[in-house]
Amino acid sequence: MQIRVINPNTTRSMTDKIGEAARAGASPGTEIVATQPASGPVSIEGHFDEAVSALGVADEVLAGERAGTDAYVIACFGDPGLAAARELTRAPVVGIAEAAFHVATLITPRFSVVTTLGRTVGIAEDLLRRYGFAGHCRRVRAAEIPVLDLEDDGETALERIIAEGRRAREEDDIGALVLGCGGMSDLTAHLGREIGLPVVDGVAAAVKLCESLAALGLGTSKHGELAFPRPKTFTGEFQRYSDLGGTATTAG
Amino acid sequence: MQIRVINPNTTRSMTDKIGEAARAGASPGTEIVATQPASGPVSIEGHFDEAVSALGVADEVLAGERAGTDAYVIACFGDPGLAAARELTRAPVVGIAEAAFHVATLITPRFSVVTTLGRTVGIAEDLLRRYGFAGHCRRVRAAEIPVLDLEDDGETALERIIAEGRRAREEDDIGALVLGCGGMSDLTAHLGREIGLPVVDGVAAAVKLCESLAALGLGTSKHGELAFPRPKTFTGEFQRYSDLGGTATTAG
Amino acid sequence: MQIRVINPNTTRSMTDKIGEAARAGASPGTEIVATQPASGPVSIEGHFDEAVSALGVADEVLAGERAGTDAYVIACFGDPGLAAARELTRAPVVGIAEAAFHVATLITPRFSVVTTLGRTVGIAEDLLRRYGFAGHCRRVRAAEIPVLDLEDDGETALERIIAEGRRAREEDDIGALVLGCGGMSDLTAHLGREIGLPVVDGVAAAVKLCESLAALGLGTSKHGELAFPRPKTFTGEFQRYSDLGGTATTAG
Amino acid sequence: MQIRVINPNTTRSMTDKIGEAARAGASPGTEIVATQPASGPVSIEGHFDEAVSALGVADEVLAGERAGTDAYVIACFGDPGLAAARELTRAPVVGIAEAAFHVATLITPRFSVVTTLGRTVGIAEDLLRRYGFAGHCRRVRAAEIPVLDLEDDGETALERIIAEGRRAREEDDIGALVLGCGGMSDLTAHLGREIGLPVVDGVAAAVKLCESLAALGLGTSKHGELAFPRPKTFTGEFQRYSDLGGTATTAG
Amino acid sequence: MQIRVINPNTTRSMTDKIGEAARAGASPGTEIVATQPASGPVSIEGHFDEAVSALGVADEVLAGERAGTDAYVIACFGDPGLAAARELTRAPVVGIAEAAFHVATLITPRFSVVTTLGRTVGIAEDLLRRYGFAGHCRRVRAAEIPVLDLEDDGETALERIIAEGRRAREEDDIGALVLGCGGMSDLTAHLGREIGLPVVDGVAAAVKLCESLAALGLGTSKHGELAFPRPKTFTGEFQRYSDLGGTATTAG
Amino acid sequence: MQIRVINPNTTRSMTDKIGEAARAGASPGTEIVATQPASGPVSIEGHFDEAVSALGVADEVLAGERAGTDAYVIACFGDPGLAAARELTRAPVVGIAEAAFHVATLITPRFSVVTTLGRTVGIAEDLLRRYGFAGHCRRVRAAEIPVLDLEDDGETALERIIAEGRRAREEDDIGALVLGCGGMSDLTAHLGREIGLPVVDGVAAAVKLCESLAALGLGTSKHGELAFPRPKTFTGEFQRYSDLGGTATTAG
Repeated sequence: MQIRVINPNTTRSMTDKIGEAARAGASPGTEIVATQPASGPVSIEGHFDEAVSALGVADEVLAGERAGTDAYVIACFGDPGLAAARELTRAPVVGIAEAAFHVATLITPRFSVVTTLGRTVGIAEDLLRRYGFAGHCRRVRAAEIPVLDLEDDGETALERIIAEGRRAREEDDIGALVLGCGGMSDLTAHLGREIGLPVVDGVAAAVKLCESLAALGLGTSKHGELAFPRPKTFTGEFQRYSDLGGTATTAG
Repeated sequence: MQIRVINPNTTRSMTDKIGEAARAGASPGTEIVATQPASGPVSIEGHFDEAVSALGVADEVLAGERAGTDAYVIACFGDPGLAAARELTRAPVVGIAEAAFHVATLITPRFSVVTTLGRTVGIAEDLLRRYGFAGHCRRVRAAEIPVLDLEDDGETALERIIAEGRRAREEDDIGALVLGCGGMSDLTAHLGREIGLPVVDGVAAAVKLCESLAALGLGTSKHGELAFPRPKTFTGEFQRYSDLGGTATTAG
Repeated sequence: MQIRVINPNTTRSMTDKIGEAARAGASPGTEIVATQPASGPVSIEGHFDEAVSALGVADEVLAGERAGTDAYVIACFGDPGLAAARELTRAPVVGIAEAAFHVATLITPRFSVVTTLGRTVGIAEDLLRRYGFAGHCRRVRAAEIPVLDLEDDGETALERIIAEGRRAREEDDIGALVLGCGGMSDLTAHLGREIGLPVVDGVAAAVKLCESLAALGLGTSKHGELAFPRPKTFTGEFQRYSDLGGTATTAG
Repeated sequence: MQIRVINPNTTRSMTDKIGEAARAGASPGTEIVATQPASGPVSIEGHFDEAVSALGVADEVLAGERAGTDAYVIACFGDPGLAAARELTRAPVVGIAEAAFHVATLITPRFSVVTTLGRTVGIAEDLLRRYGFAGHCRRVRAAEIPVLDLEDDGETALERIIAEGRRAREEDDIGALVLGCGGMSDLTAHLGREIGLPVVDGVAAAVKLCESLAALGLGTSKHGELAFPRPKTFTGEFQRYSDLGGTATTAG
Repeated sequence: MQIRVINPNTTRSMTDKIGEAARAGASPGTEIVATQPASGPVSIEGHFDEAVSALGVADEVLAGERAGTDAYVIACFGDPGLAAARELTRAPVVGIAEAAFHVATLITPRFSVVTTLGRTVGIAEDLLRRYGFAGHCRRVRAAEIPVLDLEDDGETALERIIAEGRRAREEDDIGALVLGCGGMSDLTAHLGREIGLPVVDGVAAAVKLCESLAALGLGTSKHGELAFPRPKTFTGEFQRYSDLGGTATTAG
Repeated sequence: MQIRVINPNTTRSMTDKIGEAARAGASPGTEIVATQPASGPVSIEGHFDEAVSALGVADEVLAGERAGTDAYVIACFGDPGLAAARELTRAPVVGIAEAAFHVATLITPRFSVVTTLGRTVGIAEDLLRRYGFAGHCRRVRAAEIPVLDLEDDGETALERIIAEGRRAREEDDIGALVLGCGGMSDLTAHLGREIGLPVVDGVAAAVKLCESLAALGLGTSKHGELAFPRPKTFTGEFQRYSDLGGTATTAG
């Protein structure tokens, strides 16, 4: 099967890193196509960045549909554009935040999250509440690292993440730590050794959940809220979406 | 003061109608500028439509910022792009769903919502939960009217909304009915008479809340989650957002 | 329009201060009538004080009804007697705690409250839960000031409030601070400058919400829970309430 | 021990009935003093009635304190004035709604409530939420009986309650039924036979909980929220409460 | 009446201590039979220990049924096997954790728990959530004492519990402390004096609740979830449960 | 890898069926060992049946540990003994109820469950709450089929399940249906065709989640609540568990 792992930002090195993490977790028969939108922010650190990147995610899903993709991963911890992306396909679509939360609760009743900037803590907390995992997360902690520092100043970033992870271990009474950014996926093993707790990376987790759904013959339900978008006119620079109706009219 | 009332879809007649409802509720000193994005869907009936319209909303807020706008209303019941829009300005930004919920709970402990299509019921329920009003809403009901039927087949639409509103009154044990679409704002008075319950229209409600915040000297807090977007590069068709940094660096 | 701003305690200087705060926020066409009950506690610092003051609030609403009042504000942070007061009138009735919470969530997803005595923290937490705002409030903090110290020892009180507000800013990851006592309403601007966060005063907020409801043509819903009290006999010193039936029988 | 069972309304026949129910449940060594306030509504059917009766309840507790009472029951299903009453004494104070909920959850994970008028349904629902029992109550049902019909038209009232109880049994998937009015306490056994489910009467339940607390050496905690009222001046017709300070200053 | 107080572990000294605490709280007419399973763990400090002890509890209830027992107490703070035990009898069955929570909320809106080992904190938190008391518990604190240290090294254990109780008093803003282990029941009075807060012991509390239910004529509801087990075959070492059908077929 | 799929009841035909469903979903490299306890109930239809079967599950996990098992599935919808089983191993342990809920929420925001007997509805609802999925489940529906009818009277059972599934589709506004019993796993495909909704079978889902966790290098976290049981003496027929200490002392 082919999984399109979409890095919602437009930083190539991060896309590569995410692709690697995805491939490391993938089963033998799974092909990972790591992509990024043609347009969008170089990093995602707030609601506006997320809103713009949601369009890029949608475009990547539409491209995937034309290419016969079997499943999609949205590889940014805010799961930007997740519900919109799900409307566009019958295939499974999994965000890395939700994937990490699902997987973490299967190995421990309580985990903490280490994310990048403090301003995104509320975003993660909202996801926890929406998905239903709020009761299982002790704390969302910010290491106060801008996302691109993970690329440009990896040493310092890693140190801060380790330090915050250690505080989580000591103060939060948890069984696992969730990485709060797709750009941290290469640190999983190292971090696990340093802090002595299982560390959950959403990228690999999402790949496994996509494979699982595919194997179960399950994809995004086209009944109700996530049915294909109703065919309609889009004006201006979004005119390209007016053609979606073609697909959608034949859909469930 | 000047309030920019943004219809997130691109149907002119709906923008006009929304503008009228806004003006009817505005105080003497308030100028209503009713706008719609240059690009986007002609109606919003699901997550994908919302995701695209969020960009249009952002563009309208940025245009408003250049024009010295004092407050913004997002006039679609899913409050698309609300958090992103708030990041872009120090001015108040109010969505019509949240406005309607706030106002309804001030006049009754329990209300119901009548919205358009069944597929958007879950969207409204999620907003109720996120904002905190879930305990006050008895039921979100769909009249199963496509949004544009409110424009093109007003008679039938009105009948269905009245019928659904009557069922709400009889079955839900409520004190008020909330209109679940900006395109219904012209029906408020008529509907109230027909079903014999207070009817809350989010458009007028949002205008009043904007005026209230402005009078209180309060705008979107630039501390924490809703601070200005961090200045950064946007690539491709979203390159225009790379200039946001100019404003943002001097901010909060 | 005329808004009756009811200080539920019987300390004149506090009523005056609250009246001033109300007037400062009111629109040109709004007349503020600041009143206090003829009977009741000189300050409200617990459940018993609240229970007694609820009667005073009711009497003030009944007086207002005779005077043709358009809306009511209950200017004590526990919103004492709010539901009872709402039963007595078709006009809007707004408590300053709920007003502050509504307004705060429109400018930030998370706020903290600074209140007077520790024993009232639980009262505020209960209101947050009942209204639905618990998920938006990080913490209710007590400055440990008896209410009347705000009148008699303003300097010390202010210092403590500022100190607690600074701790809130540093520790709570919030976008705004809510003042937890009507008697603090004169400190709003000063406090905002000192702690560098938007400060929300419920008195002014409630005035604006009353004006908003009135402009929207909305008042307390007489359908269901907040209908006029059923006419009945009251005995003893509360015999005066036996006459309420006259109004109520003609009501919705 | 002596338990003062306070009927918060001023209808003597109801006080007598409640006293009987209390005595039927009391242990040999327990003396039941069934009282009613000197002043107040003849029945309690909404928030305003509750607010007034809360004062009567407080006066009865103060009278009890002078008489050396060991525990108090507030025998109206809205538990009016419960928190205020608790502030006034070191003795246990138990409301019949909370008592019924506590007892019901000890015999079944899910129950329903049959109350009098529809307008009080929301009041019961709020109590369920505040106390924490909302997840255990399937539904609050109104038999649409004015409270005094329980006195004056007992036959019809009983029929309606039985009918509603049967619907609860058939539709709600419950293990027990809670009586939602102190005035129904004489119907417990008959109702249980008719509908074939355990029926929980709050009056008897509250008596047993009072006896239990007393036997455990536990009374209302004077630490924190329920400490004695701070001594202060009350003006006007409530001047009598100014003397509370005497007791309170010596208190915990 | 006869109450069978079941210590779910197999340490005789703890059974004796629990029996004593139960007797101290019991009414004159109540006979306490303190028992322990023939088989099971010597202490209960986690989910596995609880799972095994649940069988012992069930056997003790079945033995009680043969002996004509009137009510059962499960005297381990995790309430192991509570729902299963309830299925086996029409008599009341009360766990000491739930009993302590019920009683604590009747004397204060907020309490903390002091339990033994940190690994059981999550178990207590889950119970609080399931029963509905989570909003009333500020914090579950572990004194980090293995259960049997309460028997073998009582001095040290007591010191740690007192220390943790003092921290609870200082930091948690509570009105009472709940003892989180049946083996602490002999420390109640001493602890209360040391930390200056009401201390709630679940063993005595459960005895009182059993007596209360019996006096009210209420037992475990046989309608719905807690009906007698359906009669069926059990194989192997659990064959003895195959005979349950005899009782159950005649049951409600 | 080897997954031990434990049918917690002792009906061989059901174990075989569950084994088949597990094998159908397993990846090429996965060996499924379908087992059942030596002792226990022939079906699980309530809390007592669950409590007994939890011991059988534990024994099967201990047997698996000796055999070098890589992961465990607990194939009964109440997830009996899940937390206890997790304490006994470093390997992943997944219950079929949780597995089904996790998978269902990845393909739709709202699902319903069809289970066997009405008395187990509350058990499923409790799991939904504990895991965090309550907000995503519209309704747990009972087809009122005793579990063994799935073996002995398959035709009738299937008809009832289809009928209930159709009602779920029509009334619940859902995107998927979850099968509420391991014994229904052979009906998945047929049921999906009949009711026209995605149907989620927990057995296959749990196998995929086990494979996923193993591939991610994640197993039950031994930090905190799910650490190995503390080594201790078990008496009587459970003496065999006294040897667990050997393993446990080297663990965590």
